[in-house]
Amino acid sequence: MKRTAFFISDGTGITAETLGQSLLSQFENIEFTKLLRPYVDTIEKAHDMVQQINAAAERDGARPIIFDTVVNNEIRDQLARSNGYMIDIFSTFLAPLELELGDGSSYSVGKTHSILHNTHYKDRIDAVHFAMDNDDGARTQHYNEADIIVIGVSRCGKTPSCLYMALKYGIRAANYPLTEDDMERLQLPASLKQHKHKLFGLTIDPERLASIRNERRPNSRYASFAQCEFEVREVENLFRRENIPHINSTHFSVEEISAKILVHMGIERRLK
Amino acid sequence: MKRTAFFISDGTGITAETLGQSLLSQFENIEFTKLLRPYVDTIEKAHDMVQQINAAAERDGARPIIFDTVVNNEIRDQLARSNGYMIDIFSTFLAPLELELGDGSSYSVGKTHSILHNTHYKDRIDAVHFAMDNDDGARTQHYNEADIIVIGVSRCGKTPSCLYMALKYGIRAANYPLTEDDMERLQLPASLKQHKHKLFGLTIDPERLASIRNERRPNSRYASFAQCEFEVREVENLFRRENIPHINSTHFSVEEISAKILVHMGIERRLK
Repeated sequence: MKRTAFFISDGTGITAETLGQSLLSQFENIEFTKLLRPYVDTIEKAHDMVQQINAAAERDGARPIIFDTVVNNEIRDQLARSNGYMIDIFSTFLAPLELELGDGSSYSVGKTHSILHNTHYKDRIDAVHFAMDNDDGARTQHYNEADIIVIGVSRCGKTPSCLYMALKYGIRAANYPLTEDDMERLQLPASLKQHKHKLFGLTIDPERLASIRNERRPNSRYASFAQCEFEVREVENLFRRENIPHINSTHFSVEEISAKILVHMGIERRLK
Repeated sequence: MKRTAFFISDGTGITAETLGQSLLSQFENIEFTKLLRPYVDTIEKAHDMVQQINAAAERDGARPIIFDTVVNNEIRDQLARSNGYMIDIFSTFLAPLELELGDGSSYSVGKTHSILHNTHYKDRIDAVHFAMDNDDGARTQHYNEADIIVIGVSRCGKTPSCLYMALKYGIRAANYPLTEDDMERLQLPASLKQHKHKLFGLTIDPERLASIRNERRPNSRYASFAQCEFEVREVENLFRRENIPHINSTHFSVEEISAKILVHMGIERRLK
């Protein structure tokens, strides 16, 4: 069965998309075409949306599902005239919240991220530059400023996880690759030893690692299963010997890896 | 007025946090303490959460607001016994969606991001490495593989925006700094000219640019207002002369800048 879903907002659409994706993922038997439509902030754009929605309804032979966080009343009224099934996220929750909080809501356009911007922006940007500058063991002299240092073999997912923690939470995350030079009866490099309480290990299934490395350097020793298997085993032994908290990244997304790291390390995300 | 808000999940908590932040930002008169609690996936952790919620209720003299996406019934039941005001996100929407879609939902733990992982993961990781390798004009020979090339003066927000587009949407975004060498009657460098349809310009208020640069190199010519003002004027003139779409990043978050770039460029985000 096929259905179309629209995530519509007069802002970035991040809330509509995040909630919509989460809800739709619970319906495994249905194949959704998912369309993100941010900045629908004029009546003209609303008219265009209605045409898109109605065209999808005709194509699918079923009502498209619409997740919207549109604040403007006139635009919402337009969308409601389409042949879609509307899930109006703000309306659903704001009325009961106003009662509970005993206060009116401002219900203004794009509020969330403007707030993030004002109070939190600099932390996040600084953290991104920190992650870039301290990626892949490039330098180790700034580890005293790090909140966390992610270690593991080359291509196990360190870099994207560090960047995600920086962008989303303003966490200063460095990463250091444990390379073959360190491999036989692997020891912690001196630059890491002094920051042992900040270390978090990533590991990965050797099959998956070999497949990732093969795309980068096909048929190299670096990408061979034997080499990957050896490196992963050595690194996992090191994590255990040194009591370094670690997880296997193979079946997790960047979001999941990051959330797990922060829970393990007891780092409170800086929510503002 | 002070209230505490909890974003609780047995997965990453991203959905609870995103929706909760979005809703709470509509209440400007209330000061919220916001606490993210991911991976609350055992009865023991649920008990601990109840204690945290009740402690906050006592501290604030008012019920904490709880946004939850917990799938496990027993854990939800525990949380419901706390002194919090619960907004149960999945329950609210899944029942009407099941009716509309004519199908049961699997309502399984952490589904969204596992799905992202399976179908989308490689694109995102490749895009992150592309953004890293093609950051700050480091190389220009791979621009034919880029979806977009962000240009602008140093420290106007290019790097975080490119990384965000990569991490979130798997978009291959390179960035190129327009430097002083190019400044007098600024021309497009040859390496950019041939990819003109992929160019997007970022600009920024000179005051803000000077303040950002001053943190990096205090009291330098690079950070002086006169220099910033000159560079921004030259670059904005270039954008206009060459008809390059552009926005001013000063008052926008990384999320907003990225969403605006993709709308301007007509790039469809790869939602799966």
